[in-house]
Amino acid sequence: MSDKKLTHLDDQGNAHMVDVSSKDVTARTATAQGRVGMSADALSQLKDQTAKKGDVIATARLAGIMAAKKTADLIPLCHQLPLSKVALTFDTDDSGVSISATVKTTAQTGVEMEAMTAVSVAALTIYDMLKAVDRAMQITDIRLTHKDGGKSGLYTFAPDMPNPAGTD
Amino acid sequence: MSDKKLTHLDDQGNAHMVDVSSKDVTARTATAQGRVGMSADALSQLKDQTAKKGDVIATARLAGIMAAKKTADLIPLCHQLPLSKVALTFDTDDSGVSISATVKTTAQTGVEMEAMTAVSVAALTIYDMLKAVDRAMQITDIRLTHKDGGKSGLYTFAPDMPNPAGTD
Amino acid sequence: MSDKKLTHLDDQGNAHMVDVSSKDVTARTATAQGRVGMSADALSQLKDQTAKKGDVIATARLAGIMAAKKTADLIPLCHQLPLSKVALTFDTDDSGVSISATVKTTAQTGVEMEAMTAVSVAALTIYDMLKAVDRAMQITDIRLTHKDGGKSGLYTFAPDMPNPAGTD
Amino acid sequence: MSDKKLTHLDDQGNAHMVDVSSKDVTARTATAQGRVGMSADALSQLKDQTAKKGDVIATARLAGIMAAKKTADLIPLCHQLPLSKVALTFDTDDSGVSISATVKTTAQTGVEMEAMTAVSVAALTIYDMLKAVDRAMQITDIRLTHKDGGKSGLYTFAPDMPNPAGTD
Amino acid sequence: MSDKKLTHLDDQGNAHMVDVSSKDVTARTATAQGRVGMSADALSQLKDQTAKKGDVIATARLAGIMAAKKTADLIPLCHQLPLSKVALTFDTDDSGVSISATVKTTAQTGVEMEAMTAVSVAALTIYDMLKAVDRAMQITDIRLTHKDGGKSGLYTFAPDMPNPAGTD
Amino acid sequence: MSDKKLTHLDDQGNAHMVDVSSKDVTARTATAQGRVGMSADALSQLKDQTAKKGDVIATARLAGIMAAKKTADLIPLCHQLPLSKVALTFDTDDSGVSISATVKTTAQTGVEMEAMTAVSVAALTIYDMLKAVDRAMQITDIRLTHKDGGKSGLYTFAPDMPNPAGTD
Repeated sequence: MSDKKLTHLDDQGNAHMVDVSSKDVTARTATAQGRVGMSADALSQLKDQTAKKGDVIATARLAGIMAAKKTADLIPLCHQLPLSKVALTFDTDDSGVSISATVKTTAQTGVEMEAMTAVSVAALTIYDMLKAVDRAMQITDIRLTHKDGGKSGLYTFAPDMPNPAGTD
Repeated sequence: MSDKKLTHLDDQGNAHMVDVSSKDVTARTATAQGRVGMSADALSQLKDQTAKKGDVIATARLAGIMAAKKTADLIPLCHQLPLSKVALTFDTDDSGVSISATVKTTAQTGVEMEAMTAVSVAALTIYDMLKAVDRAMQITDIRLTHKDGGKSGLYTFAPDMPNPAGTD
Repeated sequence: MSDKKLTHLDDQGNAHMVDVSSKDVTARTATAQGRVGMSADALSQLKDQTAKKGDVIATARLAGIMAAKKTADLIPLCHQLPLSKVALTFDTDDSGVSISATVKTTAQTGVEMEAMTAVSVAALTIYDMLKAVDRAMQITDIRLTHKDGGKSGLYTFAPDMPNPAGTD
Repeated sequence: MSDKKLTHLDDQGNAHMVDVSSKDVTARTATAQGRVGMSADALSQLKDQTAKKGDVIATARLAGIMAAKKTADLIPLCHQLPLSKVALTFDTDDSGVSISATVKTTAQTGVEMEAMTAVSVAALTIYDMLKAVDRAMQITDIRLTHKDGGKSGLYTFAPDMPNPAGTD
Repeated sequence: MSDKKLTHLDDQGNAHMVDVSSKDVTARTATAQGRVGMSADALSQLKDQTAKKGDVIATARLAGIMAAKKTADLIPLCHQLPLSKVALTFDTDDSGVSISATVKTTAQTGVEMEAMTAVSVAALTIYDMLKAVDRAMQITDIRLTHKDGGKSGLYTFAPDMPNPAGTD
Repeated sequence: MSDKKLTHLDDQGNAHMVDVSSKDVTARTATAQGRVGMSADALSQLKDQTAKKGDVIATARLAGIMAAKKTADLIPLCHQLPLSKVALTFDTDDSGVSISATVKTTAQTGVEMEAMTAVSVAALTIYDMLKAVDRAMQITDIRLTHKDGGKSGLYTFAPDMPNPAGTD
């Protein structure tokens, strides 16, 4: 078993917000992705809106940006970080929509959770806005795809590696 | 294409918080599920904690409960609903942990989004607490599995139906 | 001087959240309006966006809806009310954009502040999104234009009455 | 038409929280003003309270200060900024009360929206506390009057310049 | 040992927000008290302010009222309740200030935590505003003094009963 | 009477968020303590839970951590500070549980209120979770015990000094 520690738990296994006061303040960036799978009917309405007024996507985009700023209020042990950039992209294909969120900060810890939260809340918002058409939509494949900055440096999700979770 | 309307958009396609003032106040319940897939190493640490002190799961559980209460603050067009119950369960298997959240209200609209949000934030919290061990964890299969109450009545997710999103 | 009491102050002049527990639960609605005056340049960019993608207006609309739900968190003595509808409209003319917000509830007190707050935050959002083009924009004429329900019944703003504030 | 870009929209016109990570961290200050016009009756009660206990103004002042800290939660594309000072002043004349808010930060972007938000929420709070006496009060003339720091340097609202919005 | 159950824990000892959906909607009220002990110097400045402008007390009062509305956001397993009244009183004696908060609702569960939270945050605010003068202030004796409504009916704190905590 | 100024009030006695922009950014730490006194029955259930699953303490711990991050939202004149560490400890004795919270930041002002708030909300959460067993619990002795960093340097609460508030 790994020697890596669960840094959110102290020596007695209790939760705490870890001390980052001795870490360097550096530029940090993270990108996360996710997907909402949906019926042809829901997708058609989503695309139709996209073409005409874009409100489903526009609403999900803003929900994701605003949620990124609330991350430390949602995830109990996250540090509050001043985000210097949040941007989301949405790509539709023939069975749903893929979401990507990129977040930047200059701080003592990274913004992985902000990117993951932005994607999750954008996906939930798409579900909310289309659920009258398709209640069986599913949110899948939320994962960190890129991270840079800080002591651990660059991380890139490698989809063709054997995936430990076996779901992709 | 379906005649079902996207109720979050008005006749001009603009977003609004839909008028539910003429709907009946009834008991409503919703259950959503989701899953965090992870490496054997992360799972081992999760289970170990579960056996010893349960803090990863306990933290995710509280994060999910508290997030359910914030749903209307996260999802732009959700109504604020007074929740009468929120409960989450967690089940580990050999490749990750499955999360289920059940939410109840007595109100003019349902609590699907509250259940979906509880599961999503609980999953994000598990990711946050284990990411030092496994950054490649994935959050998958977030979906509404049960809904009751209101005019539309009972809904149950049917996993052996052809899945429109093709990811499950 | 009027005998009307400032209901937010008790007999000693101290602030309190007034007791509405003996008031009837009734359907209540309120509409507020406001305006953002801007340069031709800013207006041109606003309209151009409206025509193409509508993001300035779409963002302001969502900000207004979400702010209506936060009213009791912003205005110290407001009661928390479950809103059953929030909708905003935007109309551009040759010197700016007029905003109208309509809010409904079924509760023991009214939603005037929710409508006023929705308009104010939508106006602030327009300012934020266009301030790179015109810092001299002004937000004006925020007022309650319609209110119904509750003991005091119907109220309508009468613009041709002598206006006490002299700005309209 | 101006070449100035709407920085809150990317090249495709989509909303994003703009990247400020390469901007300098400098001391920044902003002052905004606004006004609540009201009837003689409302004004008399406001002044009377001011003389005796000041609770209407004291409540509005705190609401403005607290709202400044919530700006990034209200205005979708605002960055979260650590405010180093927030102060409001209130001046009554014969037809209402004028509000001024000054906000400071040391950060990569300015605090115009924090000052504008502080004034707006203070004005809404005055409306809320006096609306039992005068529902026809109006909030007007919310504008940025002073801004300093950052690359664009000093800005001062010039009231005797031809006003593009034509309302002052 | 008591047979009374810890209702916030389910049969397996896990936290959940308990199901109140089958409880009656009734009028409920709760009063809590607390105290901030302080030096003669701090007390003198507090009283002086009270006489002149009352801002320390006025600020603490508003902080308490606003905190009551945030109770469900602070206390993880609290239900969200629409408060119909919140009022605080402050009494100074020769060694500090006593705080009392009364809260009302018409709901399926009581407002004890809202009253306790209002007192606590009012006390913290007094500490914050006077800490430049006296860092050794102490917040003590926060307790529920009165509760009515719901199935359990009237409860009154009896100070001359043997106190189980031995601190009063 | 002391010459020390109440820094939260300006020269006219009005509340403001004081200007800290000229203060040094330094490492700062603060520790606060508090206590929940309770009946033998409540204590027995608390300890039993602690031994078995720890959920009462685990819930209070997370509530305290999350509340520390909300301090500036609760205490009207507090500055928003990016916390670099939050940790709580709980110790039971024969009449209750003692709580200690330590908070760190690197900023222009200290984290006393964050530590005091963490203790207070943890104590309120313990009250909430055990109130079904003992409504007469009391929260006492909330005080700052240690503070370091900034211009005023080290402060330590000295319990055997004559206590100005006379309650300890």
